[in-house]
Amino acid sequence: MTQKPSPTLDFWYEFASPYSYPVAMRIDALAKASNVTVNWKPFLLGPVFSAQGWQDSPFNLYPAKGAYMWRDMERICQQQGIPFQRPQIFPARSVLAAKVAMTGASDGWIAPYSRAVYTAVFALDMDIFRPETIRSILADLDLNAAQILDRAQTGEGAHLRQQTEGAIKRGIFGAPSFTVGAELFWGGDRLQSAINWALDST
Amino acid sequence: MTQKPSPTLDFWYEFASPYSYPVAMRIDALAKASNVTVNWKPFLLGPVFSAQGWQDSPFNLYPAKGAYMWRDMERICQQQGIPFQRPQIFPARSVLAAKVAMTGASDGWIAPYSRAVYTAVFALDMDIFRPETIRSILADLDLNAAQILDRAQTGEGAHLRQQTEGAIKRGIFGAPSFTVGAELFWGGDRLQSAINWALDST
Repeated sequence: MTQKPSPTLDFWYEFASPYSYPVAMRIDALAKASNVTVNWKPFLLGPVFSAQGWQDSPFNLYPAKGAYMWRDMERICQQQGIPFQRPQIFPARSVLAAKVAMTGASDGWIAPYSRAVYTAVFALDMDIFRPETIRSILADLDLNAAQILDRAQTGEGAHLRQQTEGAIKRGIFGAPSFTVGAELFWGGDRLQSAINWALDST
Repeated sequence: MTQKPSPTLDFWYEFASPYSYPVAMRIDALAKASNVTVNWKPFLLGPVFSAQGWQDSPFNLYPAKGAYMWRDMERICQQQGIPFQRPQIFPARSVLAAKVAMTGASDGWIAPYSRAVYTAVFALDMDIFRPETIRSILADLDLNAAQILDRAQTGEGAHLRQQTEGAIKRGIFGAPSFTVGAELFWGGDRLQSAINWALDST
């Protein structure tokens, strides 16, 4: 008896992206309810935004958009029942956290680690640019922080640049984004559409 | 016996805005199902975008965003069961159509008129900059086109500028947008959230 492959969905996220936070907190449960497998794909928005001529987050460059987003985050997080605190540093400098996530993708702890990083940024206002922050997150997950930070800088972490280039090649221009094959969905509101697409195309 | 006021929702739209089209086609039915009254509020995105430093639609300025949007429109319209054809002229020059809509707001035919204009732009690839197009839409609605076009230029149409300024004052930066009191929701995906907000705040 042959078995149909399990439908899968790629979740493209950046730790500095506000709207990626509530998605990170719910995507695994939501996808599991539909038997869809999620591939967590961290990338950096910096190079994506640079390609669009922006040297800062559009939420900083366009104040009306930014004011809306912070209010919207309050509403969304309240509705989802997750804590939210507007971070003092925005956008967070996320490169170290993302390199560590690449290591977590190899080892299988990327999802809980990513949720912990988002909580640090958007609920606890911690500075993820500081290695101590990442070390404490890894320690809380009972992981060997020293070894992982080393691999993040010299091993799997080096693939973050390729993954970011892969995001750009797929037409990704913001986060969160979801891909199912060549189909792209942008924004947390489209998560269910992406899951449905994964189900229909399997 | 006092009666509770009916919950209301302001729907801010621009005839050149692709994502406003599927919303225009479904908002009245969706709101009616929740007993929410919709105020149709046409405005112009041109001055809004100018204030953000854009002299063209962001879908033209940022090609990845534009490519995504056109594909997304196909998917959304297919799912909603409405026709879609990518217009050759984008963004549509919508000022006349919007001035006529202001007249329709006074007279009570703004909703069917607006749906007809969106169908002209996004399903029939008609040029709404041409007065003939607007005249034929009005005639199809059994309205006096000559008289209305006159009022659009010299009467109620003059309030379009104020309405656009009102949109900017409310923090609106794109279309479609929805407001319930001071609460702003941006994007077709947030229509149900806006309806729910209107229900909860009445």
